Amino acid sequence: AVRLRVREALGAREPAGEVKVQGWVRSVRSQKEVLFLHINDGSSLENLQVVADPSLENRDLTFGSAVEVQGKLVKSPHKMQNMELKAETIRVVGPCDIWSFPLKMKERHPLEYVRQFPHLRCRNNTLGSLLRIRSEATAAIHSFFQDNGYVHIHTPIITSNDCEGAGELFQIETSNEARESAEKTHFFNVPAFLTVSGQLHLEVMAGAFTHVFTFGPTFRAENSQSRRHLAEFYMVEAELSFTESLQDVMQVIEDLFKTATDTVLSKCPHDVELFHKYIAPAQKLRHLARKLSCYSFHSYLKRLFFFFFSCSISYNEAVEILKQASQTFSFKPEWGCDLQTEHEKYLVKHCGEVPVFVINYPYNLKPFYMRDNEDGPQHTVAAVDLLVSGIGELCGGSLREERLPFLESRLQRLGLADAYQWYLDLRKFGSVPHGGFGMGFERYLQCILGVDNIKDVIPFPRFSHSCLL
Amino acid sequence: AVRLRVREALGAREPAGEVKVQGWVRSVRSQKEVLFLHINDGSSLENLQVVADPSLENRDLTFGSAVEVQGKLVKSPHKMQNMELKAETIRVVGPCDIWSFPLKMKERHPLEYVRQFPHLRCRNNTLGSLLRIRSEATAAIHSFFQDNGYVHIHTPIITSNDCEGAGELFQIETSNEARESAEKTHFFNVPAFLTVSGQLHLEVMAGAFTHVFTFGPTFRAENSQSRRHLAEFYMVEAELSFTESLQDVMQVIEDLFKTATDTVLSKCPHDVELFHKYIAPAQKLRHLARKLSCYSFHSYLKRLFFFFFSCSISYNEAVEILKQASQTFSFKPEWGCDLQTEHEKYLVKHCGEVPVFVINYPYNLKPFYMRDNEDGPQHTVAAVDLLVSGIGELCGGSLREERLPFLESRLQRLGLADAYQWYLDLRKFGSVPHGGFGMGFERYLQCILGVDNIKDVIPFPRFSHSCLL
Repeated sequence: AVRLRVREALGAREPAGEVKVQGWVRSVRSQKEVLFLHINDGSSLENLQVVADPSLENRDLTFGSAVEVQGKLVKSPHKMQNMELKAETIRVVGPCDIWSFPLKMKERHPLEYVRQFPHLRCRNNTLGSLLRIRSEATAAIHSFFQDNGYVHIHTPIITSNDCEGAGELFQIETSNEARESAEKTHFFNVPAFLTVSGQLHLEVMAGAFTHVFTFGPTFRAENSQSRRHLAEFYMVEAELSFTESLQDVMQVIEDLFKTATDTVLSKCPHDVELFHKYIAPAQKLRHLARKLSCYSFHSYLKRLFFFFFSCSISYNEAVEILKQASQTFSFKPEWGCDLQTEHEKYLVKHCGEVPVFVINYPYNLKPFYMRDNEDGPQHTVAAVDLLVSGIGELCGGSLREERLPFLESRLQRLGLADAYQWYLDLRKFGSVPHGGFGMGFERYLQCILGVDNIKDVIPFPRFSHSCLL
Repeated sequence: AVRLRVREALGAREPAGEVKVQGWVRSVRSQKEVLFLHINDGSSLENLQVVADPSLENRDLTFGSAVEVQGKLVKSPHKMQNMELKAETIRVVGPCDIWSFPLKMKERHPLEYVRQFPHLRCRNNTLGSLLRIRSEATAAIHSFFQDNGYVHIHTPIITSNDCEGAGELFQIETSNEARESAEKTHFFNVPAFLTVSGQLHLEVMAGAFTHVFTFGPTFRAENSQSRRHLAEFYMVEAELSFTESLQDVMQVIEDLFKTATDTVLSKCPHDVELFHKYIAPAQKLRHLARKLSCYSFHSYLKRLFFFFFSCSISYNEAVEILKQASQTFSFKPEWGCDLQTEHEKYLVKHCGEVPVFVINYPYNLKPFYMRDNEDGPQHTVAAVDLLVSGIGELCGGSLREERLPFLESRLQRLGLADAYQWYLDLRKFGSVPHGGFGMGFERYLQCILGVDNIKDVIPFPRFSHSCLL
């Protein structure tokens, strides 16, 4: 018998003789004359219908059990499916203790419920679809960069740098050291941390390959259990040399978003549909429908990447828009202050629920590596954030300061010139204008699927007080 | 002017009018009548030759400087190159302080030398080629699995499990905690570690998708500065459900190796050639040539994956072969003991320098999750290691114990039944025979390129006492 995956069986053009399908039972319906099973093996959201003689029933053949079915693949008489399997033998490979199995037949379990069972939730429809989409999106992002001549770089996870100058770092020690006293030598001789960004290491590589990207885990020791934060999450980061303006960086962000989303929508239509039908909040749809005259989240996404993408405003303009808003904010909008979540929300709404690039942020708000715009009196750097509906900041990027004197004096003022001698070196040996960005991969998935809680778009969420498995 | 990358310019079929090429100068040769430059932008190992009027020379135009050259792309009169660029303008974008630049024009720097400059070594030919190959190999591995219906899973980096039961773990704390005293609460409430393997998490997913893989960083806090070990390295891991025997796992290993290597050899022929010509040790060639009648490492690899791959022996046979060896070992070969490096070397030599699968290892040598062969008196589990010339263990895998009673009693004897309740759950709800393997990505690169030291096949090596940048 030829082994077929469910997806292959469902997509078969012709009936086939001896075939074998293996998977898990999603439903059992026993009638007088006939036994119906639905089998799923994770290759698609859809199940394969198995039709069998009632004599093939046995007590281990329950929801959740693993089975191997042999028989004939035939055209299905039902409109909704192409093929079904007429069983000749059914073997229960592994039974399922249905009384203690937390998933129940034909029930649509809430995401909060399945989140309690990280080792079993992938057998739920929603998480199954999510993980297939995540896998396709990962592949699409790799392809996008590879097709555009970018070299993939594994930037280090363990680093002795602290890119953002932020305090919320995880430090690592050997488990022996962790048990011992404070006065100790480090495994790496120096304190070592989990990376918060691969940017600086990518900049090293952009000085040799001109176009580079990385796509890996990054970490924040943020004490937050909000629906927006994880301690471990994935970032796509790219760096490009010989940039002419911030537009070059924004163009790559737009192309990446469109290409990846296009691939996901066309490769996983059913999986995406599940999210747009059952998960994306109804309230969101009304918003979007009004502004873009789309009748669903799905058509909103399609319009977004077929016809246009975003609007672009400067930080100065953003502050003016906020100041003139009729809405009262908890944080009063003021030049020189960070945009708060409420501000970001308002700006996206103001621009019609399309993604909004905000560019040229105050010099004093941003890290040392961003390129000085040499403007004034409101001094800015060539930074860009991409704000999207429901998520807030999806991408952040900038031109990098490639001019040695500017970078040197800024690092000196910050007392960092010694620590970043190697970074200054990059400006001494053939420095070029360059820029780059990072995109939060989980936020991207939330954005295209309409998922509210970031814990539901990653296989094993890690956040403060929780590290299951 | 149309912007062209060096690779595009070199591969152009037709001369072209106004083009612009940007990159770094690899050589400058000034003659009376003409100025020659070689430009590299990391898109290929080969440089683009620029021919210019001597009047375009200027003092900043040195080795290592970044330039933008505009001109006409014309057929080259030289046999070794297809196209060259007749410059009309040359602009130095960023000069290079050649006196302090550690790389020198036209010098073949030893790998040990450039290793001292992690922020600059990518501008060296050898590391440039390595990183392009690494990028292509990464893409090839992703494609191999995706093309074969595997779902990609980001297994967690931070974990509360200790898969191998090994002691050499990195533990993580927030940087505040690290500074404080021993009596503290953990960020995650429980002690958390950097992953040593994504296997157990992949097994979760294999119970929903049947075919899954992961490709990410893994960690060992091994106090070793040997040429074979890193504290942070990359692993490709796959898990497949409904296996029939260990052969299923071995077949995937072989297919993966052949497909990835085939892609790398065909996509980066010049980069690979550099390694086979200048880096792979000559001594190795003699060995291989003798056994497979190949005249070079390159042809050895090609024969390996066109005609055959490996031989396969049981652990029992391996011990017999070692016992009968004329060679005397520092560790006497004995049933029930681990194979030492010297043993592995001998076995590979004995089998003719082809990769060797060693299967069915002693029960007591292997971790709890490996499937009991129920044989005796020499009790074994269905484990497999792939040994290769010059590297030792390239892959390790096994069938996993899918039978609840076997797994339960083994975990109980080890006192781990409580900690692994979730893992036992996987055997209660539709358990299936399954197996998988892991392949060290850096070792794979060493293997196909003939690189002796593992620090030279990763962009930013981390090992004990060293975490540069």
